[in-house]
Amino acid sequence: MVKAKSWKIAKLFDGVPKDEDLQLVEEDLPGLKDGEMLIEAVYLTVDPYMRVMLETNGKVGDTMMGEQISKVIESKNKDYPVGTIVRTHSGWRSRTIVSADACRRMPELGDLSLSTALGVMGMPGMTAFFGFLEICSPKEGEVVVVSGAAGAVGSLVGQIAKIKGCKVIGFAGDEEKCKWIKSLGFDCVYNYKKVKIDDALKEAAPEGVDCYFDNVGGEFTLSVLKNMKLFGRMSICGQISQYNATEKLKAELPFPMILFKQLLVQGFIVMRWYNRWAEGEKQMSQWIREVNK
Amino acid sequence: MVKAKSWKIAKLFDGVPKDEDLQLVEEDLPGLKDGEMLIEAVYLTVDPYMRVMLETNGKVGDTMMGEQISKVIESKNKDYPVGTIVRTHSGWRSRTIVSADACRRMPELGDLSLSTALGVMGMPGMTAFFGFLEICSPKEGEVVVVSGAAGAVGSLVGQIAKIKGCKVIGFAGDEEKCKWIKSLGFDCVYNYKKVKIDDALKEAAPEGVDCYFDNVGGEFTLSVLKNMKLFGRMSICGQISQYNATEKLKAELPFPMILFKQLLVQGFIVMRWYNRWAEGEKQMSQWIREVNK
Repeated sequence: MVKAKSWKIAKLFDGVPKDEDLQLVEEDLPGLKDGEMLIEAVYLTVDPYMRVMLETNGKVGDTMMGEQISKVIESKNKDYPVGTIVRTHSGWRSRTIVSADACRRMPELGDLSLSTALGVMGMPGMTAFFGFLEICSPKEGEVVVVSGAAGAVGSLVGQIAKIKGCKVIGFAGDEEKCKWIKSLGFDCVYNYKKVKIDDALKEAAPEGVDCYFDNVGGEFTLSVLKNMKLFGRMSICGQISQYNATEKLKAELPFPMILFKQLLVQGFIVMRWYNRWAEGEKQMSQWIREVNK
Repeated sequence: MVKAKSWKIAKLFDGVPKDEDLQLVEEDLPGLKDGEMLIEAVYLTVDPYMRVMLETNGKVGDTMMGEQISKVIESKNKDYPVGTIVRTHSGWRSRTIVSADACRRMPELGDLSLSTALGVMGMPGMTAFFGFLEICSPKEGEVVVVSGAAGAVGSLVGQIAKIKGCKVIGFAGDEEKCKWIKSLGFDCVYNYKKVKIDDALKEAAPEGVDCYFDNVGGEFTLSVLKNMKLFGRMSICGQISQYNATEKLKAELPFPMILFKQLLVQGFIVMRWYNRWAEGEKQMSQWIREVNK
């Protein structure tokens, strides 16, 4: 009998998730049927969106959601022999029985670490690529602001903006993160816990902000709004400042500013571009190769 | 000596404008120089945007702003003989001395009243045409909500949406207005003073709203947001519920909804499409002719 370990939801999250909201359990897996494979997790991922998805779709007893990179360790499917590496949405489990339709295409990784298939070459990478380029349409010389700039998505948005010839202003929450994103090439970096957003933007973007890639929401986003240029674009990717909130934040409504500055504000979930991922993966892998030269 | 009457700003508006904020004065106009014309106003216009513009740009002593349709009554410009009808931004004045570069092109009016050059064939018409079609991109069968639906812009947006094959839900502020927009072909009409917006939308758009043309802002817009469909579009044209406000409204921030519903929210001022007005005027005049057949 094959054993698997799985993190289950023991209690629905209320505010910040706590250790006891999840429980590690051991399961017995049945034998494989024709066409099935037994896979073993190599990398699991934890992403901010999960917090929100669980709030609306989660229930006690579910396996914690998430993508994983795994290796086929037993197979009754000739297309997926033992040793094949696959990407699946199996959640936080050590071993899983899957059929071919649960296995997703791997990006072309070359000599990159397998873990990048969950990062720069995976969902966060495609989020940065499509969410920034398709919505913000950045032009050379424009000013780009990124919040959550040291995150899996934000750090890539900043680098893509630099490749596009923009001035990039990043905000992160501690000195170490700030130092790291500065080393990635961000032009101006601020610890949002130590500055007023408005003061920082007046200093770094005295003529205003063309593009804002929003990972955090809340009052932060309102402060950026006030500093947007006419015809600015705001890509709403995340609202992490609100995910653990137990009460909805009340603040000044942004619509008058959206009107008079003629802003475009668009929210997105990256799967809307799933049919174009090959294009994103190709460009990202090319940029990574250029950087690593 | 030629006399002119002019409404001047006597006091900057504070909250709802009052009679005494404006003052009617008589002026002496000088003689015409070569190239100039003396025009007499035939129609003046008053539009909601003026309230906001005056707040930021107005000063005591200014002539009240606005477009007018006028007739040349004396001329030292052979291209503009006496009797020529022109459209100018001369504000609320009876007579004005202008040069050719202050006269704007008239739309093709055919047998329409001259006043339409300030309405359906003028700025409000182009606002409805471009602001709705370019931002909302309505498709046949979609559900369109219009606030301020009995206004110069909103009433046109609803009619354009009907021409495009949409289901149109309009909100206005009294029974007479509601009756009128119903007679224009709106599918569902509500007096927003007598219903809860949310209840009305649940009834008229149980599957959600695809396009929202926003003239009013505030809590109204938040209620529509909550009823938007995935991938909905919101054209932010006016915020009239806020123009006379002396304090900024605080309410739930819309960004999480914009994100998870993947909405596009865009503010605009119609002059961004000024180079395309001929296109808008042509289509509008064609539609008017079809309706009047």
